[in-house]
Amino acid sequence: MSTERIYNFSAGPSMLPLSALEQAAAEMTNYRGSGMSVMEMSHRSKVYLSIFDEVKADLKRILKIPDTHEILFMQGGATLQFSAVPLNLIGKTGKADYAVTGNFSTVAMEEAKKYGEIRIACSSKDRTHTYIPSQEDISVSADASYFYYCSNNTIYGTEWKYVPETGSVPLVCDMSSNILSVPVDVSKYGVIFAGAQKNMAPAGMAVVIIDKSLAGKELAITPKLLSYQVMIESDSMNNTPPCYTIYMLGLVLKWLDSQGGVEGMSKLKAEKAKIIYDVLDESKLFTGCAAAPARSDMNVTFRTTSEELDDKFAKEAAAAGFENLKGHRSVGGMRASIYNAMPAEGVAKLAAFMRDFERRECK
Amino acid sequence: MSTERIYNFSAGPSMLPLSALEQAAAEMTNYRGSGMSVMEMSHRSKVYLSIFDEVKADLKRILKIPDTHEILFMQGGATLQFSAVPLNLIGKTGKADYAVTGNFSTVAMEEAKKYGEIRIACSSKDRTHTYIPSQEDISVSADASYFYYCSNNTIYGTEWKYVPETGSVPLVCDMSSNILSVPVDVSKYGVIFAGAQKNMAPAGMAVVIIDKSLAGKELAITPKLLSYQVMIESDSMNNTPPCYTIYMLGLVLKWLDSQGGVEGMSKLKAEKAKIIYDVLDESKLFTGCAAAPARSDMNVTFRTTSEELDDKFAKEAAAAGFENLKGHRSVGGMRASIYNAMPAEGVAKLAAFMRDFERRECK
Repeated sequence: MSTERIYNFSAGPSMLPLSALEQAAAEMTNYRGSGMSVMEMSHRSKVYLSIFDEVKADLKRILKIPDTHEILFMQGGATLQFSAVPLNLIGKTGKADYAVTGNFSTVAMEEAKKYGEIRIACSSKDRTHTYIPSQEDISVSADASYFYYCSNNTIYGTEWKYVPETGSVPLVCDMSSNILSVPVDVSKYGVIFAGAQKNMAPAGMAVVIIDKSLAGKELAITPKLLSYQVMIESDSMNNTPPCYTIYMLGLVLKWLDSQGGVEGMSKLKAEKAKIIYDVLDESKLFTGCAAAPARSDMNVTFRTTSEELDDKFAKEAAAAGFENLKGHRSVGGMRASIYNAMPAEGVAKLAAFMRDFERRECK
Repeated sequence: MSTERIYNFSAGPSMLPLSALEQAAAEMTNYRGSGMSVMEMSHRSKVYLSIFDEVKADLKRILKIPDTHEILFMQGGATLQFSAVPLNLIGKTGKADYAVTGNFSTVAMEEAKKYGEIRIACSSKDRTHTYIPSQEDISVSADASYFYYCSNNTIYGTEWKYVPETGSVPLVCDMSSNILSVPVDVSKYGVIFAGAQKNMAPAGMAVVIIDKSLAGKELAITPKLLSYQVMIESDSMNNTPPCYTIYMLGLVLKWLDSQGGVEGMSKLKAEKAKIIYDVLDESKLFTGCAAAPARSDMNVTFRTTSEELDDKFAKEAAAAGFENLKGHRSVGGMRASIYNAMPAEGVAKLAAFMRDFERRECK
């Protein structure tokens, strides 16, 4: 049995900071003298609430969340938010605008059609989602209840580099795969949500940040637990929240602080991504899949000259300790997901492995 | 900092087997040579799927789940099932029958009213839910899409000792607080569901066991992730499931096997409960809250002669290492939740403490 940790390039769930995992292990059977695991604590106990409140305070500070907005810890990942967003917000006019730039925004749009009239405000489907539309390509309806987009497309490896201007139409953003990797002006958003399992915590939670003035107008058919208003009023405790996942988020946030917070991550992520994009730009074997201006710093998608060689690369990489480099089954190729917790040395070693693979294949 | 684990009588989240916690800690940074934490694994990776498949197989074996039924791992706890059940099942006739025997069946019934016509088939509200109606008290509508009940009422400390006869109307049961503590004839049920945080795993999951023939008839407004059919077809992986919680359930099931499975638990739970009920029956200070025939083996509710004394008891008990004995805020008094993972010695020590407290107070 190996005692070495590998470099895990999974698109999610994905690497967590080793210090967070080590602390979780150390505190597993007895959290700081409480005589209990965090897993065993009543969510309404003082000892658990002190954890919960600290996680919220840390997240609020780190993301500079204004008092106009509330943090909610919900279950069901980002996917259940695909339903919650229209259920809570579309009642205003019955209509909403969606920017379709990849798989998850497409799925979100299809789900929203159950609850109202959905318009495509822009789409990158014409070039298989290899780019991000520019502001001029976006047409916002004046009567849209909200405008929806996904800030980073994990499958296609593209990332929005700007915040769309939508006038008085509230912005809703799925930040699942780049939250906490870049500073965000939260005040510009009506709703930000993110599945936890990429940059925040283990799978099983969505963090929702909502402008409180938008809550309380959900459709009558909204399941109680999906109502933002119910969640605001109960401080995410209408029922038992995913207590341990919230605790893990707290440990990750402590690590994030030690790394310079979101600002530190933002600098590091650009550096890490550049290491691999430089390989792609200089390579005769590897090609990046995304258009250069839209390249994601979180998910680098690329391919070789054939499917056979793609397979060979992924296999040899895994044997060398670089796991989960195969691209999503819908697009093929390779994908290196380099979220916050992927150390720079893992990226540098992958880059060296890629150059070496090319030398061996192209000699 | 204390290194002693306490006896945690919380109604949930609640004690987990120490062996499960210790194994989780030992495997936290590197699961069996994989180089990863279970928290970091792609849910579609071979290494994770081997965990997932084993948990399902173990649960199927332990609960003797027939092939007609499927196991689903869903998010949102039992509360989100209060919505999912009517969304999936009420479409058949637009009507459903509810047995109202406590807080959670009441909440479930209120939620179901959003989606159809709900009839109260029986209720114990006339005597503040201190008893369970008998079969003769239940009137089942022939045109009900399903009959709903909650097999153990954590707040009031009552437990159904029989399976209601409902003819051809499918039985739906919330077993959150007594699943895995007693053998169940799963074939009698259309849907069994249970929040994980009492007898199974940390909070953040519901295990759903569904007769597959009932799926696929959900209302058109059903959020995709709440559709039993979608969950069956995707083997609970329409999106990322709560991977780590499922792994923890697996560790708890291994412990359950070592304790004689559900049969072993069933014997033990009756023994454990009797220890405290004997104290109540012999006491001049303590009174049980539930009617004797309906007494729950999982949650023992009781009170002293005054609120002040209740408070004093709970405080002194906590100081002596018996935590979370205060009753639910809606009913007051005390509650000792003695789920599967509460060792018999914890119950015996609590009983001794109760007798001692009485001696001191009544001398």
